[in-house]
Amino acid sequence: MKPKRVVIIGASACGAKAASRIKRLCPACDVVILDQSAFISYAACGMPYYLSGKVRELDDLVKTTYGRVRDVRYFNDLKDIAVHTNVRALHIDRQARRIDASNTVTGESLSLDYDALVLATGARPKTLPIPGANLKGIYHLTRMEDIQAIALEIRNRERGRAVIVGGGFIGVEAAEALRAKKWNVTLLERESQLFPGLLDFEIAAMIREHFYEQLVETEFDAGILSFEGEGGQVRKVITQSHSYPADLVIVAAGLAPHTALARAAGLEIGQTGALKVNAHLQTSDPAIYAGGDLAENTHIVTGKPCYMPLGSTANKHGRVIADNICGMASTFPGVQGTFVCKAFDYAVGATGLTETQAKQMGIDAYAVSVCGFDKAHYYPDSQIMALKLLVENTTHKLLGLQAVGKGDVVRRIDVAAAAIRLGAAVQDILHLDMAYAPPFSPALDVFVTALNVAQNVKSGLMKPVTAGEAKKLLDEDESVLMVDVRSDLEFRRAHIGSSKVVNIPLDELHARLHELPKDKKIVCVCLLGLRGFSAQRILDAAGYADVRTLEGGMFLWPWKDELD
Amino acid sequence: MKPKRVVIIGASACGAKAASRIKRLCPACDVVILDQSAFISYAACGMPYYLSGKVRELDDLVKTTYGRVRDVRYFNDLKDIAVHTNVRALHIDRQARRIDASNTVTGESLSLDYDALVLATGARPKTLPIPGANLKGIYHLTRMEDIQAIALEIRNRERGRAVIVGGGFIGVEAAEALRAKKWNVTLLERESQLFPGLLDFEIAAMIREHFYEQLVETEFDAGILSFEGEGGQVRKVITQSHSYPADLVIVAAGLAPHTALARAAGLEIGQTGALKVNAHLQTSDPAIYAGGDLAENTHIVTGKPCYMPLGSTANKHGRVIADNICGMASTFPGVQGTFVCKAFDYAVGATGLTETQAKQMGIDAYAVSVCGFDKAHYYPDSQIMALKLLVENTTHKLLGLQAVGKGDVVRRIDVAAAAIRLGAAVQDILHLDMAYAPPFSPALDVFVTALNVAQNVKSGLMKPVTAGEAKKLLDEDESVLMVDVRSDLEFRRAHIGSSKVVNIPLDELHARLHELPKDKKIVCVCLLGLRGFSAQRILDAAGYADVRTLEGGMFLWPWKDELD
Repeated sequence: MKPKRVVIIGASACGAKAASRIKRLCPACDVVILDQSAFISYAACGMPYYLSGKVRELDDLVKTTYGRVRDVRYFNDLKDIAVHTNVRALHIDRQARRIDASNTVTGESLSLDYDALVLATGARPKTLPIPGANLKGIYHLTRMEDIQAIALEIRNRERGRAVIVGGGFIGVEAAEALRAKKWNVTLLERESQLFPGLLDFEIAAMIREHFYEQLVETEFDAGILSFEGEGGQVRKVITQSHSYPADLVIVAAGLAPHTALARAAGLEIGQTGALKVNAHLQTSDPAIYAGGDLAENTHIVTGKPCYMPLGSTANKHGRVIADNICGMASTFPGVQGTFVCKAFDYAVGATGLTETQAKQMGIDAYAVSVCGFDKAHYYPDSQIMALKLLVENTTHKLLGLQAVGKGDVVRRIDVAAAAIRLGAAVQDILHLDMAYAPPFSPALDVFVTALNVAQNVKSGLMKPVTAGEAKKLLDEDESVLMVDVRSDLEFRRAHIGSSKVVNIPLDELHARLHELPKDKKIVCVCLLGLRGFSAQRILDAAGYADVRTLEGGMFLWPWKDELD
Repeated sequence: MKPKRVVIIGASACGAKAASRIKRLCPACDVVILDQSAFISYAACGMPYYLSGKVRELDDLVKTTYGRVRDVRYFNDLKDIAVHTNVRALHIDRQARRIDASNTVTGESLSLDYDALVLATGARPKTLPIPGANLKGIYHLTRMEDIQAIALEIRNRERGRAVIVGGGFIGVEAAEALRAKKWNVTLLERESQLFPGLLDFEIAAMIREHFYEQLVETEFDAGILSFEGEGGQVRKVITQSHSYPADLVIVAAGLAPHTALARAAGLEIGQTGALKVNAHLQTSDPAIYAGGDLAENTHIVTGKPCYMPLGSTANKHGRVIADNICGMASTFPGVQGTFVCKAFDYAVGATGLTETQAKQMGIDAYAVSVCGFDKAHYYPDSQIMALKLLVENTTHKLLGLQAVGKGDVVRRIDVAAAAIRLGAAVQDILHLDMAYAPPFSPALDVFVTALNVAQNVKSGLMKPVTAGEAKKLLDEDESVLMVDVRSDLEFRRAHIGSSKVVNIPLDELHARLHELPKDKKIVCVCLLGLRGFSAQRILDAAGYADVRTLEGGMFLWPWKDELD
């Protein structure tokens, strides 16, 4: 192909990746990147780990794998790519294929012609439209400037008080980072759970529980009224029910795509508010490509547009854009909402749809929850985790998986991501030959077990009840009896506090059947769900008409603070 | 269905699982298990970790997740399953559907009628047909009796000398366990690499290299002539080239299925020597099922019979057998050779076919090797690993993945296992939305990168050369020049020792092109492969006709002991 002049706006994940790939595909292309910041090509997702001290130097976030800083010279010398920092793009002349920009430091103007233009302007953090939002000490966690300022605050004050607004993954990561520095941390979330919109309630509740253990204070359904300050510095965060002292506030209330430049140029905006692109990542102007946090994606499971800004997606966008600019007809297949987040000792993640999302969309699906160990249970650092698998009713297709626990949850998320991407139904992937050795996996991987349980539920063998349903039955239904089949010791340590709960260890169940009235609705409970299922089958066989198994057992019970 | 009398021979993974599932599916069935050992339902794969001390008590290997020992009483009380230990099955009367057995301790005979019979007699370790093979101190690592005896030897002798025969995963795990106890360890392997038949040479070489670091002595292509003893106790292992002092010998030379009982009953044996079963795991007698290490499997990638005894497969067999006995028409889809093995600080594993296997079978395929980090490279405990992906030439279907490194290799193996099971081609799974957060993954997962590289190779953009080919070129071809594009510091630390190797750091390449003659075959080398690829593209564009990139860079170079 004829070498092109490519102008890229934004030198972060998508822009930098596109530039590098274009130069590898077509070294004769002339590639110029403009970025309005002085910092380029940094690993924004690594910022919380610099705050916590896990990443020692801020420079580590801008170094290559072999220790070279990705600065303007790096792009120039190694990649023959021109990068202009502190340059803000002002106007796109689509007719003339020219971009006007100016240097925010020197005030200098510049004008660049392009054959292809790449918009990778990213997203900006949402701000709160409340009094005091402009006080000093209120930060976001998206730019290098933020992180430098927050790091300074932490260094200058021991055991300060931080309030984090927003319980998505940036808020959760920030909470961990600040606790690592021994700060007092309060997290405010306007929804009633962590990871709202990303996880189902009971999965997110596992992290809420772990936050208690880590001494992170939380307020849910929090209506934030104002920030109060002294001498221009934030001092308090006021919600409808509380007032929280604050030396530092981090607002992590989501991202909004930076569409101003694209809008002004008349490019089509998608229904999510992000920039609309086709599968080749072309905007409504075929000479203009867009990717990263600016662009709308297609959700692989629903086929619908979605806005899911993530660094991993941005990098993939960059590659696809480069291919297309260089004449290889690449397409981006879309995203499926896969994520993972470290929250202190826990990891939590998901791929595909949650049960809540499926319900909102009217998708006919059933969910099964399964607990198991990440490694052979006798291996020293094995950990329990919970998986929640969502399956479409008519097709048995996997729609989503959520996973939470102290162990290796990310592996199971990624396996499910592959299966969902490939459109697998439960039966297509049953008995999957996963890698087994005691330091890594149990003989039957918990993902394989989840597929088995989905089959058991579908065939009517297992009759599950979720924690939410079980709690409702306990609270409202007089005819319910909950049989906790764990050992006497396990039961005494902690159990659901209700007169409707009895303890009959599984190995005594046969002998003590006479204690269980046949006219009750019975819910069988154990630690992880397996003994409960065995008990359900014993009671089924003994002629009990309405017996169910508490899915995920006590491990996944979301109200652990109310246990006896 | 009408309750059945089910007799199961073997109370290990497959047998115990089948029994438990039958009782859950059909509590009215009468289930009896016979086992010739006193030990039942133990986690044989956990044995090396008891030897090393990672698993503290031998009992831990026979306990459930909630701490209950799986003994005869456990099966009786919790599961209503009768287990007869120390009972050897002697004869199957297929006509009468009756099995004759005898107690090896009391000599008592017993005879059991069955509606369905499950053969789960497992496998026995192969012995070496050489002088001294019956000396004391020579063990296998498959039975509880072995492990007790070996543990006693270790306790009784400090810094003893062990010789391990066989470099498959049991041999490798045993080496790690004995080194953990500060024993001197020598591993003898008759093939020229570790994991023969399971991994390609250069992947296995990474573990050989790590063995040097861990002070495990190795002899490859080892012809073992005899064991020599004193007073009936082994003292030496004699090979064609060496004599090794030995206080203890572990023979891990593979497993052979225990088919004697099945053969005597006239059941059909498969071409691998294991018992032939159909997809329902029925033998040639429909009333007799078989699974676990006794049974032959179908390989999902090749469609051909294979013998791959693994605990994970045995458990799945047990479930499928139970389903079929209870009237649910379950099928077992086959295996794909997935495994993972911990070798000191490394993990290594594979799924599907290796390049060597594909060549032997005449399958038209190409392989790409990629190195990358398991987590964000700036995250403190991130580790480099190497992936080798095998792709079918005509269909672009994934045929296999091998992975090795100190980091999280098992995740990438399992993702590939899912993709291969579902018949994915490279394009079906390109840009897979894998879970990303710095503590778990790089923004572009190394598996995603491997798919990208496969595309680069297929499209002719990347012209890879394997380490083996590169070494051959260096040794035999006068017109070869190897350009190491790492930094001066990296180069000086260690590089391939040859007058044909020059160091030109990537950022000096443009300026120093005149140093490279145009008539040479050029191989570009870096640490992981990415800078090498960039260099190849620069040289391609500069008109060099024959430029290739060393796949996997110096990280995957198998002859590290010969570096300058």
